[in-house]
Amino acid sequence: MIIIMKNNFSEKDLNEINLRLNESGLKGQKIEGTEKTVIAVVGPINPEHRDEFSRMDGVASVVRISKPYKLSSRETNDQDTVVKLPFNVQVGDGNFVVMAGPCSIENHDQLFETAQAVKSAGAHVLRGGAFKPRSSPYSFRGLGKEGLQLLSQARSKYNMPVITEVLSVRDVELVAQYSDILQIGARNMQNFILLDEVGKTGKPVMLKRALAGSIEEWLLASEYILSQDNPNVILCERGIRTFEQATRNTLDLAAIALVKQLSHLPVISDPSHGTGLWNLVEPMSLASVAAGADGLMIEVHPNPEVALSDGPQSLKPDNFKKLMDVASKLSDAVGKPMASLPY
Amino acid sequence: MIIIMKNNFSEKDLNEINLRLNESGLKGQKIEGTEKTVIAVVGPINPEHRDEFSRMDGVASVVRISKPYKLSSRETNDQDTVVKLPFNVQVGDGNFVVMAGPCSIENHDQLFETAQAVKSAGAHVLRGGAFKPRSSPYSFRGLGKEGLQLLSQARSKYNMPVITEVLSVRDVELVAQYSDILQIGARNMQNFILLDEVGKTGKPVMLKRALAGSIEEWLLASEYILSQDNPNVILCERGIRTFEQATRNTLDLAAIALVKQLSHLPVISDPSHGTGLWNLVEPMSLASVAAGADGLMIEVHPNPEVALSDGPQSLKPDNFKKLMDVASKLSDAVGKPMASLPY
Amino acid sequence: MIIIMKNNFSEKDLNEINLRLNESGLKGQKIEGTEKTVIAVVGPINPEHRDEFSRMDGVASVVRISKPYKLSSRETNDQDTVVKLPFNVQVGDGNFVVMAGPCSIENHDQLFETAQAVKSAGAHVLRGGAFKPRSSPYSFRGLGKEGLQLLSQARSKYNMPVITEVLSVRDVELVAQYSDILQIGARNMQNFILLDEVGKTGKPVMLKRALAGSIEEWLLASEYILSQDNPNVILCERGIRTFEQATRNTLDLAAIALVKQLSHLPVISDPSHGTGLWNLVEPMSLASVAAGADGLMIEVHPNPEVALSDGPQSLKPDNFKKLMDVASKLSDAVGKPMASLPY
Amino acid sequence: MIIIMKNNFSEKDLNEINLRLNESGLKGQKIEGTEKTVIAVVGPINPEHRDEFSRMDGVASVVRISKPYKLSSRETNDQDTVVKLPFNVQVGDGNFVVMAGPCSIENHDQLFETAQAVKSAGAHVLRGGAFKPRSSPYSFRGLGKEGLQLLSQARSKYNMPVITEVLSVRDVELVAQYSDILQIGARNMQNFILLDEVGKTGKPVMLKRALAGSIEEWLLASEYILSQDNPNVILCERGIRTFEQATRNTLDLAAIALVKQLSHLPVISDPSHGTGLWNLVEPMSLASVAAGADGLMIEVHPNPEVALSDGPQSLKPDNFKKLMDVASKLSDAVGKPMASLPY
Repeated sequence: MIIIMKNNFSEKDLNEINLRLNESGLKGQKIEGTEKTVIAVVGPINPEHRDEFSRMDGVASVVRISKPYKLSSRETNDQDTVVKLPFNVQVGDGNFVVMAGPCSIENHDQLFETAQAVKSAGAHVLRGGAFKPRSSPYSFRGLGKEGLQLLSQARSKYNMPVITEVLSVRDVELVAQYSDILQIGARNMQNFILLDEVGKTGKPVMLKRALAGSIEEWLLASEYILSQDNPNVILCERGIRTFEQATRNTLDLAAIALVKQLSHLPVISDPSHGTGLWNLVEPMSLASVAAGADGLMIEVHPNPEVALSDGPQSLKPDNFKKLMDVASKLSDAVGKPMASLPY
Repeated sequence: MIIIMKNNFSEKDLNEINLRLNESGLKGQKIEGTEKTVIAVVGPINPEHRDEFSRMDGVASVVRISKPYKLSSRETNDQDTVVKLPFNVQVGDGNFVVMAGPCSIENHDQLFETAQAVKSAGAHVLRGGAFKPRSSPYSFRGLGKEGLQLLSQARSKYNMPVITEVLSVRDVELVAQYSDILQIGARNMQNFILLDEVGKTGKPVMLKRALAGSIEEWLLASEYILSQDNPNVILCERGIRTFEQATRNTLDLAAIALVKQLSHLPVISDPSHGTGLWNLVEPMSLASVAAGADGLMIEVHPNPEVALSDGPQSLKPDNFKKLMDVASKLSDAVGKPMASLPY
Repeated sequence: MIIIMKNNFSEKDLNEINLRLNESGLKGQKIEGTEKTVIAVVGPINPEHRDEFSRMDGVASVVRISKPYKLSSRETNDQDTVVKLPFNVQVGDGNFVVMAGPCSIENHDQLFETAQAVKSAGAHVLRGGAFKPRSSPYSFRGLGKEGLQLLSQARSKYNMPVITEVLSVRDVELVAQYSDILQIGARNMQNFILLDEVGKTGKPVMLKRALAGSIEEWLLASEYILSQDNPNVILCERGIRTFEQATRNTLDLAAIALVKQLSHLPVISDPSHGTGLWNLVEPMSLASVAAGADGLMIEVHPNPEVALSDGPQSLKPDNFKKLMDVASKLSDAVGKPMASLPY
Repeated sequence: MIIIMKNNFSEKDLNEINLRLNESGLKGQKIEGTEKTVIAVVGPINPEHRDEFSRMDGVASVVRISKPYKLSSRETNDQDTVVKLPFNVQVGDGNFVVMAGPCSIENHDQLFETAQAVKSAGAHVLRGGAFKPRSSPYSFRGLGKEGLQLLSQARSKYNMPVITEVLSVRDVELVAQYSDILQIGARNMQNFILLDEVGKTGKPVMLKRALAGSIEEWLLASEYILSQDNPNVILCERGIRTFEQATRNTLDLAAIALVKQLSHLPVISDPSHGTGLWNLVEPMSLASVAAGADGLMIEVHPNPEVALSDGPQSLKPDNFKKLMDVASKLSDAVGKPMASLPY
């Protein structure tokens, strides 16, 4: 931690800083530059120290040196995390994994038709929303428990693991009964109590990046789960909010490449939400493969024009099939081939 | 709703759109412009129709005409909402209301000392956090129930209503027992199940704008509460996240002025979070008064340099006193004088 | 400057850094923290050193300590800059100055009618665009020299200084002949050669903040002008671009308050561009006064509904008159009264 | 164009709108919806009409239907633009083109060493800056004409076309003498007079997207060049400015895929500026290939740790060689193979 002094600091300011450093078990070393005087601080620094010292008299600002996240960092653990799922699927082991299915589970036929299509096209995990976060209270909010039961039936019929979103602490237990992966949506990335609770289940958790979530905050959010002794965290980039409105969000693929360097956690990409436009899903899926993602999450719907949610960004089964063919070729080219199908 | 056709649409596309419109009880009128053909749609349009029609063949895009929020809109109800609080305090009645207190409740003395200071300086509502959302799991997360009890004691001693944040559906009942206003923080603006639940309590709710929350989404979030037959909603602008990092957030005062035009709900400003820098709190408080806010929420701490959270943006009691003096003068000048003190 | 080492740096890395430091006339001091090793560097550091050392082996990152701007900084010169204009108008002397007029100069009557209206309402400086930057090449781009001549005639008739934008180095000399202040628009904040050239004229320059311009970049841009021995710089906040699209831009009033602390230059606010909506101009003008701005720039047009540019954000003369009345009251209340009228 | 009426509009408002429509040669058709009344307008609409009508009494807002850009649109011309360069290089013909070289030309040896390295690694165009836009006036601003001369010598020696930035109208003629492509940097995307002038040269122009430039504004900026009868425009995505600061900018690859759908112009990607970090250049280059870019622009420097600009994002020659190998494989896999080498 580096304390940068104001130009007009006094000896009294310095003394009080040193006193406080001693009380905190820290050690400061004054360095006089040409323009500025700084105090380099070493010792057991905690997240609050920066704020505390920045508010003291004579201090201009305080710069943190260490990264605030630990458990998710490659500096702590350089070995890639591999998240094991039922049906012999693994995320993060060097193969490429595709999760696909409808945004919302609407009824039996819609789900099963989609599941059949994505399975046969080569998807590894079936997605489907039962609890849906919607901007407007007047929109369809999901089938709830009935949706979970349908998902579970599709899981058995098609022999593939499933993923669905959990919106609230009160549903964690219920969703954990039915789903192989608990999805934390972008709007809940910093719903810290929910993070605690999904962490406690020990089940795999897929943590989406918030619309305004910095990479650092995203990794810190993963620490809430990891610090519950649950190492099974998958990160998912799904686009951030920027000034550009021609796409629904701005898919930040450099974040995927950077997080792969900073962290040992697997990272997948969601070009459906990341663009909001079905005809951008294929190019951005391919770009995700090339950027180093460990997998994709894609919305597929048999009739997007009557979907109860996210129709504009959903692929039809034939387009999904076409996407899988080119993505497969590309994943070979970059040395991260498609994972074996679930069985 | 306006459906904009692609340049190369076919008669078949038109027919299918008209068929679907009829099935939905809607009526379309084709208009051929110099460059584009559009279909103007009238009838009982719901939030899903835009997505549905935008995905049909031959359609370039669909433009919504009506605003998606209803209960919060001035077009629905032009009369200003006045939220009544205990101790004869009202928000939104044409007088200016100030909420102040520590970011986190740390202990008895810190809270009572602050409460005494802000009350005597002219504040109307005491704030204090018992459940704290923190970016890092390694930071102080609040005293929980013990904090609520301290807050309740301060409420009785200083005769002023209190506000505190509720983070999770599981705490709604508990927090509602102690707090006069339930605060929904920025990170929970779109935690829709929490919005449902605080709505159901019937208690006043203060809804902060999310870091990436558009004004439209903010008003839609308020609909979740209002649609539970709870009219007691106060909005709070607390800064949005932008590229500028010299301040913690970018306080969007035009949003306050605009929301006052679009909605009948009271809007207050939080320059502490909005700037993150204590020495910007005074100018931005004054600017908030001038922009038409109905009140302020200010963080005050007797010793910000040892605060367990948000020290850098907290005012000391003497600075808060000074702020109240000038804000009072200014609120007179703009015709929205300080409300009477609670009693 | 602080060099932060990677966890796995080698002695060889350290030696090469020290060698390079010596060659650059700098001195490094190694400090070993609990987690990280850093090198605190003192001496004559230049803007390139950060990049250079951050690219060396073993280095994780480099943190700059000193601010990169000098001439505009209060640390260099704590005395408020006062920009003197003809007709006895001054900007930055503790009084409040209003610049008003049409976005574009369209013809003699439109300009003179507006000039007469704003002068009689209490404005100090007449604005009017002769060279207009337009997103589309098919929009009206201004009257050019003819516009400048009209502006100059209005200047003489109404006895008030004038301001107009210069778009290109090839027009600097021409515009400087006619205008008392050279305006650099947001899109040209980092048109560095233009900054050099307006700096060389010695004339007052008003430098608008870019749509994506950080406060630091804005002050650095002012250094281009100041370093040409031209101290007559006025800064103008006109809104930044964010995700919020309900307003044309997001007027960042905290930037005004912060720049007044960081720099000695006067700062004015442009709520017309800052909001893009005429009915937000009054509240945001008042908020600008309260935030500590030294003045306002307001677009006024006798018939905004036929304006060739920026009609939606232009005030009619009667609304401008009303604004001046309340702004005047408010500027008294905050201790920065309206400047005397030009004469 | 759709005029949306306020709820409380009057017959008089309607009449005046119709009068104005008639005067403008336009025709309106009133449509009464359940909640809103709108007027669908057809006829020769120009860019100003939206602003004009939105300011009339009784009007809530006005929605544009047609796209404002014409010459750059696929709707106008569906045939891909192919930009022909000397030495038999073409951009946009279905093959992949790589431009590489130092950020700034520093001296003969640095340029020639880099040129030799990038040519032998398979690059098609040599880049090198002679006029450099720098945030700080105290940074190296380029060698100017001397740099152009060195670039021209390298062009002859290595038989490859060259690209360099032109910063100002006064340098257009000079730069056009030496460079095969005139580069317009991000800060000048809306320097409209410069766009006019480079358009008039008839030479190929590469137009970078502005830090806060929307896709629509970017295409409109290209119209300035195209409307000078210069069809030789190459677009370049180089990252936009967002809240995320872990990377220098946010490279918006979906913009590339979208612009390829909206426009017939070739689009290349600049991952060096797009990320600001040399170790993200390779993954984002590959992602650019996969997203459908027509080429890359990469900064290469023999000794990035002593580069006078952009060292942190520059590749060393051996890393560039490695990148070219994998990019070549990938460009084959996506059906857009590397173009033949210049000769």
